[in-house]
Amino acid sequence: MEPGVPTLSSRAAKLGIYNVDTSVTFWACPPVHGCLTGAVVHPAAFTYKLPDDVSYAEGAMIEPLAVAVQACAKAGLQPADVCLVTGCGPIGILVALAAIASGASKVFISDMTAPKLEAASRFEGLIPVNIQKESIERVVRAHCGEDWGVDVAFDASGHPSAYGSLLACVRPGGQIVLVGMPVEKVEFDVVGAQAKEIEIKTVFRYCNVYDRAIALLASGKIDVKPLITATFPFSESVQAFERAASGRPSDIKLQIKMPA
Amino acid sequence: MEPGVPTLSSRAAKLGIYNVDTSVTFWACPPVHGCLTGAVVHPAAFTYKLPDDVSYAEGAMIEPLAVAVQACAKAGLQPADVCLVTGCGPIGILVALAAIASGASKVFISDMTAPKLEAASRFEGLIPVNIQKESIERVVRAHCGEDWGVDVAFDASGHPSAYGSLLACVRPGGQIVLVGMPVEKVEFDVVGAQAKEIEIKTVFRYCNVYDRAIALLASGKIDVKPLITATFPFSESVQAFERAASGRPSDIKLQIKMPA
Amino acid sequence: MEPGVPTLSSRAAKLGIYNVDTSVTFWACPPVHGCLTGAVVHPAAFTYKLPDDVSYAEGAMIEPLAVAVQACAKAGLQPADVCLVTGCGPIGILVALAAIASGASKVFISDMTAPKLEAASRFEGLIPVNIQKESIERVVRAHCGEDWGVDVAFDASGHPSAYGSLLACVRPGGQIVLVGMPVEKVEFDVVGAQAKEIEIKTVFRYCNVYDRAIALLASGKIDVKPLITATFPFSESVQAFERAASGRPSDIKLQIKMPA
Amino acid sequence: MEPGVPTLSSRAAKLGIYNVDTSVTFWACPPVHGCLTGAVVHPAAFTYKLPDDVSYAEGAMIEPLAVAVQACAKAGLQPADVCLVTGCGPIGILVALAAIASGASKVFISDMTAPKLEAASRFEGLIPVNIQKESIERVVRAHCGEDWGVDVAFDASGHPSAYGSLLACVRPGGQIVLVGMPVEKVEFDVVGAQAKEIEIKTVFRYCNVYDRAIALLASGKIDVKPLITATFPFSESVQAFERAASGRPSDIKLQIKMPA
Repeated sequence: MEPGVPTLSSRAAKLGIYNVDTSVTFWACPPVHGCLTGAVVHPAAFTYKLPDDVSYAEGAMIEPLAVAVQACAKAGLQPADVCLVTGCGPIGILVALAAIASGASKVFISDMTAPKLEAASRFEGLIPVNIQKESIERVVRAHCGEDWGVDVAFDASGHPSAYGSLLACVRPGGQIVLVGMPVEKVEFDVVGAQAKEIEIKTVFRYCNVYDRAIALLASGKIDVKPLITATFPFSESVQAFERAASGRPSDIKLQIKMPA
Repeated sequence: MEPGVPTLSSRAAKLGIYNVDTSVTFWACPPVHGCLTGAVVHPAAFTYKLPDDVSYAEGAMIEPLAVAVQACAKAGLQPADVCLVTGCGPIGILVALAAIASGASKVFISDMTAPKLEAASRFEGLIPVNIQKESIERVVRAHCGEDWGVDVAFDASGHPSAYGSLLACVRPGGQIVLVGMPVEKVEFDVVGAQAKEIEIKTVFRYCNVYDRAIALLASGKIDVKPLITATFPFSESVQAFERAASGRPSDIKLQIKMPA
Repeated sequence: MEPGVPTLSSRAAKLGIYNVDTSVTFWACPPVHGCLTGAVVHPAAFTYKLPDDVSYAEGAMIEPLAVAVQACAKAGLQPADVCLVTGCGPIGILVALAAIASGASKVFISDMTAPKLEAASRFEGLIPVNIQKESIERVVRAHCGEDWGVDVAFDASGHPSAYGSLLACVRPGGQIVLVGMPVEKVEFDVVGAQAKEIEIKTVFRYCNVYDRAIALLASGKIDVKPLITATFPFSESVQAFERAASGRPSDIKLQIKMPA
Repeated sequence: MEPGVPTLSSRAAKLGIYNVDTSVTFWACPPVHGCLTGAVVHPAAFTYKLPDDVSYAEGAMIEPLAVAVQACAKAGLQPADVCLVTGCGPIGILVALAAIASGASKVFISDMTAPKLEAASRFEGLIPVNIQKESIERVVRAHCGEDWGVDVAFDASGHPSAYGSLLACVRPGGQIVLVGMPVEKVEFDVVGAQAKEIEIKTVFRYCNVYDRAIALLASGKIDVKPLITATFPFSESVQAFERAASGRPSDIKLQIKMPA
């Protein structure tokens, strides 16, 4: 189930950008309750059949993966683009994996938490950079050349310090894609952005990519199974939530297995 | 003469974005002197013949017009787009005129200086908004509807207060184009931008549009003559510069007429 | 009333291209009857309020104008593009007018019927070319240079002879936009198209441009009134249809005035 | 060495589409001789360093791969696009591999020669279709649904029969990309293309993708080694050319190993 349901006759929906229809109702977004319930009614147009070769456990990863696919779809990645993702949480890793699946030849992914970077390092094409140990800008320049940079720089951290790195690392004429949601306004260097004439794209949930996210799993282009770091029986749901709230660095996604 | 000359074999120039080649030399951009001299040597590929029906006075307006055309070319205006330009100086008015010539059906242009807005009001399609008297957001919503906004919002002011207006006035899925250069970093509402999934484009000089700017004058689609508010003989050049430096609100562009 | 009504939950409609939804019902397209009846029921999402300054007579021109706007929207015209339209019937003239309104600085429009070209010649920016008297390719090359051509070449004739002209006249890297519907398959020079690496876009009715077509009339950017070459009272409807069927070269659009 | 060298100051080159500059000189394109010689002089801007992990044998595959990458770059593939390639020669397979590397989740590749399809079947994501045994249209519809089709249909055959299949198999709003060069004009169903409002892109050599083709090899995203089906010592060059001319169906690319 794609959780957001727009008014299909709205101006935004007619334009094909139903995610920004202001009347969208979205499961688990107040005032709408979530789906921790026996049954819900959901429109067929936003419901997708899970292919036989995609497990329920993988299927539960489609929602965050769809955010990552939306980011890559908006970026319009070109073959062999070199990318940067700031932030190595679940969304950061999924953005990096979606970028590789969408054409990137190499994705630098930066964070300051070693276990998260360790998780990212297990995937083909992802190059973890621990910004407590090395400068991401230096790493990117060493790879891309002094006057160049990454084609697309994604933020998946929302951390105020990231925005300067995105700009420093992106190439002239490149793109910055903002996925992470900072808690406050950020300081933005307009003139620095102009000097490289960069474009900045923002991502709000997803639109017309749920089926694409499913196809990326079904085709084996993205393997999300290593991101499911623990699975709890339904009877231990409370412990699962407590563990998630505790923010263990080595946890990526925790799942609760529903009784059959 | 298009004043910036790139290295044609550079990576940026090969990509067709020669304006962001870091090796560009640009007349009157330090350390390169300007053209207040009898003769200069300039590459043929960046020199254009002025059509017979374009005067030298108009020709001298092509450089700033090219910035405006670059902004519109990057925006990729669609037929009948509704636009906003914040800032009603020469660049703001030229952006608004270029937008109308490039497909916009209507351009709101905002400022707090009455004579500038008065100058803008004389052009077809431009709707001046004095933000000391009325809220630009309210004006835009009254025209575009409560849940909608302008398709493209250009900044031509660089003023810190403009950035909030751009975001408030742009429609879901719309674009912000940053032409003005603020003196300091600006506070930017990333989450607000994400909620509308807007794209932000930045403009650095111009690239592949000098011939287009000339054609817009030659075809009569843009009339820059009303923007030339005073012309000085060459012998009064010093007074002309002093007048320009004095910043009279009713002055748009001052010109010095060269001896034949 | 935008005459095509799609299934809003279809795959095409969700993508924002509802015009190619295969389940569209379209007034006056068999098996759906037309609107020569007292009242019809039509969805609000595809119904638009005519602005006060747009007459019913102009309003009746919005449907064909929307086709022209669709063609220009798909072309993504850049400021000061030079265009060619082959075919100077009502759709050809409307495409040319929409191109000028959407950014073109100049539109060559070719045909072999003098009265049609004469009608086109009255509009700013349109350059009629009578292909019985001169070669369109020669005219275009004289204007654009031997190694160059028009940025966008639209066909609005559907005539087999047009397709070679489009290719001969378009510049390297340019676009061909096919609006006219030929009665048979056409011979297409693939290698010739490849040598210029052109893109070909096709147009099917319209999508998300009805409001834009209306705005182009309301703003005065397009004046369709000269295209209404005769108006019949309702009581002479039969004569009006007979006149239309007779195909007088000087007739562009005939209208029947409904009783109030 | 990227074999085409444009005039960098030409109009096309300034636009970033130097491949369609009419003054390009291209090794081995008459009147320019090929490189079967001890040394040639070539501009640095079109010469690339082979990474350490890319062999000379792979390096010799970059030229045809660049054509395939150009096709995918022009298509602007979106994540998980489903594609069709008509023609399973070396270029067809390379286009299919480049499509997978550029985001496609699945590529149908059709031909009538079993050994070629057998070669394609060894690559992840490629689905060979023998059109002597089954209808490509039926296969595509079975996978994509009755009212839908592939997102992008590439031709790499140049065969007159392919063009109908491309159109029959592409989805509404999809793209056709023409890589193969037919020996004669082809019959093209304009109205059929309009009914789906498809876009047709053409490919002429390559532009700004040589470094991208190299990166796809270096990153391991594309493995061209299985396409090198035989390697001849330099002393057997004549036999190599004779074998190539004989057109054995199981041969994909033959190479001559140069003496060190």
